[in-house]
Amino acid sequence: MDTQNAIAELLSSLGQRVTRSKSDLDLHARSESHFSAAPPDAVVYPETTAEVAQIVATCARHRVPVVGWGTGTSLEGQAQAFQGGIVVDFSRMNRILNVAQQDMTVTLQPGVTREALNDELRATGLFFPVDPGANASIGGMTSTRASGTTAVRYGTMRDNVLALEVVTASGEVIRTGTQARKSSSGYDLTGLFVGAEGTLGLITELTLRLHGQPEAISAAVCAFETVGDAVACVIDTIQCGVPMARIELMDVDSVRAVNAYAGMKLPEKPHLLLEFHGSPAGVTEQAESFGAIAADHAASGFDWATRTEDRTALWTMRHNAYYAILAARPGARAIVTDICVPISRLAQAIEETRTDLAEAGVDGPILGHVGDGNFHAVLLVDDSDPAEIERAKAASDRMVARSLALGGTATGEHGIGVGKLDYMQREHGAGWAVMGAIKQALDPDNIMNPGKLVPPRN
Amino acid sequence: MDTQNAIAELLSSLGQRVTRSKSDLDLHARSESHFSAAPPDAVVYPETTAEVAQIVATCARHRVPVVGWGTGTSLEGQAQAFQGGIVVDFSRMNRILNVAQQDMTVTLQPGVTREALNDELRATGLFFPVDPGANASIGGMTSTRASGTTAVRYGTMRDNVLALEVVTASGEVIRTGTQARKSSSGYDLTGLFVGAEGTLGLITELTLRLHGQPEAISAAVCAFETVGDAVACVIDTIQCGVPMARIELMDVDSVRAVNAYAGMKLPEKPHLLLEFHGSPAGVTEQAESFGAIAADHAASGFDWATRTEDRTALWTMRHNAYYAILAARPGARAIVTDICVPISRLAQAIEETRTDLAEAGVDGPILGHVGDGNFHAVLLVDDSDPAEIERAKAASDRMVARSLALGGTATGEHGIGVGKLDYMQREHGAGWAVMGAIKQALDPDNIMNPGKLVPPRN
Repeated sequence: MDTQNAIAELLSSLGQRVTRSKSDLDLHARSESHFSAAPPDAVVYPETTAEVAQIVATCARHRVPVVGWGTGTSLEGQAQAFQGGIVVDFSRMNRILNVAQQDMTVTLQPGVTREALNDELRATGLFFPVDPGANASIGGMTSTRASGTTAVRYGTMRDNVLALEVVTASGEVIRTGTQARKSSSGYDLTGLFVGAEGTLGLITELTLRLHGQPEAISAAVCAFETVGDAVACVIDTIQCGVPMARIELMDVDSVRAVNAYAGMKLPEKPHLLLEFHGSPAGVTEQAESFGAIAADHAASGFDWATRTEDRTALWTMRHNAYYAILAARPGARAIVTDICVPISRLAQAIEETRTDLAEAGVDGPILGHVGDGNFHAVLLVDDSDPAEIERAKAASDRMVARSLALGGTATGEHGIGVGKLDYMQREHGAGWAVMGAIKQALDPDNIMNPGKLVPPRN
Repeated sequence: MDTQNAIAELLSSLGQRVTRSKSDLDLHARSESHFSAAPPDAVVYPETTAEVAQIVATCARHRVPVVGWGTGTSLEGQAQAFQGGIVVDFSRMNRILNVAQQDMTVTLQPGVTREALNDELRATGLFFPVDPGANASIGGMTSTRASGTTAVRYGTMRDNVLALEVVTASGEVIRTGTQARKSSSGYDLTGLFVGAEGTLGLITELTLRLHGQPEAISAAVCAFETVGDAVACVIDTIQCGVPMARIELMDVDSVRAVNAYAGMKLPEKPHLLLEFHGSPAGVTEQAESFGAIAADHAASGFDWATRTEDRTALWTMRHNAYYAILAARPGARAIVTDICVPISRLAQAIEETRTDLAEAGVDGPILGHVGDGNFHAVLLVDDSDPAEIERAKAASDRMVARSLALGGTATGEHGIGVGKLDYMQREHGAGWAVMGAIKQALDPDNIMNPGKLVPPRN
């Protein structure tokens, strides 16, 4: 590794778009997670694919780590340069290149954020539905295979990325997929790079599927006596073919936190938050179907939000629930869990987790993308109490073991990074070595985001 | 390569489930395509994953090719043992292992056919929607990334396979994915094996997503003055958010062939065949929306089919269209093209193809999965006329060039096998070598379905 020569070469071609200022390194040392700071050796701000290719080729020649950076909102340390090297910040590659209205696709650069994309699309009648909460970059969302509240209806990033341009570990530029909606032409390289967390290459351009803005939207919140009732209601609704656009669960602890934080007066019971998209008649029919099923599961306290401002308030409350939970214990930090199980096991997984956390003395309000079987226990810890952190991590480990035993995964949407690396062997067994073999084949010198996702090199 | 010793070892453990009879070898020498016969050295009929692992381990030790076989309906020679070796026929691994009703998933062995699966599911209220026409095996459909008439609504095999068990080239058994609906845990190995055509391993178990049987179904056929009108109507309908379950195009030549074959009296114009799925009110609303849009595009001759027998007749006509086209020229064989373009370019692609075929003197009626931008020109050739075959192949080449120029792919759903190998470099450029590197990493001795999909080994 010859980091200083690599940086010198980059400086000579990219000039001021290579920075080593302490403030810039510090800004790129942490992401939105509990991992310790890891400042890179330099940050570069490319503006074109050719520049990214040149950066990677330079780093390849000098065997210097290359780590992609979108908005720094990943939760498992994916964007942190724990082995030093060059962080490639995509914020200047933020152009929307083409909106193909008839094809319902958009081609764009990876630094475009989710909200910027949807602002740009507003007048077209189209939108990009994947919504992880944070205003993440599209490149980052693709690399972590993000999803969020709307995945139950519109799928995850896996389902909504059609084509990529990628700079591989040798600095070569390849294109995966096409602008057509489907293809049977060879290995699904697009799917391989989605969720690869920058360990196989850097994404420099993407084509995404778009969806029509729904003609009508209706949202609601309602309470249930138990988490089991709420989940059973969701299962029945999905089986009846009601195409819910969002279906979110808050457990009692989350409801209490939200009430305290936002001055709400929700009953202290598990709640579902829902949204329906469709034609006016379709939305009415969906809402009626849901209402009938919910009544069978003793739902109460229905509050419908059909006006835009009421819906916005509802989803702002949901998106702020994380901060509400943090605020419930001033000074605390969070270890956010992310297991995802078959929906038939979701009530069991949540109830066992609640019991386990109570017995272990760990605070962990639960929020769930219940239609996907995915939920987060937000484990609150005092950063200065190693014993408490240990208890929380042990509880997180048991959650993962529980998820795997129920046929689920350690992470529904946050990814691996370094935070969930210890769970890979347990979840994938011999499959993890297959991932390692692919990494070895495509990045033999291990320069692309080293130390993440795949088995450590010997 | 030591084929005889490998067969001797397999005989000693699997006995009569290893065959070398001429009739059995001949049965596995051809698939439903125009490639010449290629009998394997032996056919084996495993009944368990452990047996498949043993077969592959034996072949790996002796460096003997291993080719998977479902029902032999692939169209690009995927299941033919052109380099000899062992064909693994999955017909005895045809058990449905678990239908998880609440999760809307099924776990099954790869030899189950599409129709057998849906027969088994009938009483559950669920169904598996992917429908390539042929009664293919689920393992084969997965390996070719099949789709068909319903992909516009329900997606392709890529979208409907949740998890796999795979025997890799070393004879090791791995599991990919989980029973949960989504995961961000590492590389998407499931997606990598879907569409890999058995070149990376043999699929021995699958978990598929199921969908609720629609409460109501309505189908229709209508005529348009031009292909352009029909495609414009489809684009507008999709943009309005009407969730069509099927939307198929037949050009004038296909309509003539169907009229002659099935005694139909459709007007000699381009036609759309459609199907709507939903609640009774939803289906009515969808049909009305479509009718209004179709009227704007001068559609005529609407014929609605709401009764099951009328719908069955309609889709039988569509599924038999291939045979109707073949029958239009007795003794002819077909080279079936499979390009897929962005839908905004579909009318152009079809019209240019029709003009090209007419100028080249090649008969090629066109059938299209128009909602996906995918269409087949069925190029009729006299097997004994090398010049005609040459003309047809040249026309097929020009179709692929046209598709790539329009942002499309050489194959929307049939895959590569050997038939489309020549198009890989053109479509993927440097990406094809990336596929080769993955193949080299996971199958270093090149025993898994050699000669297909990836660049030839030096």
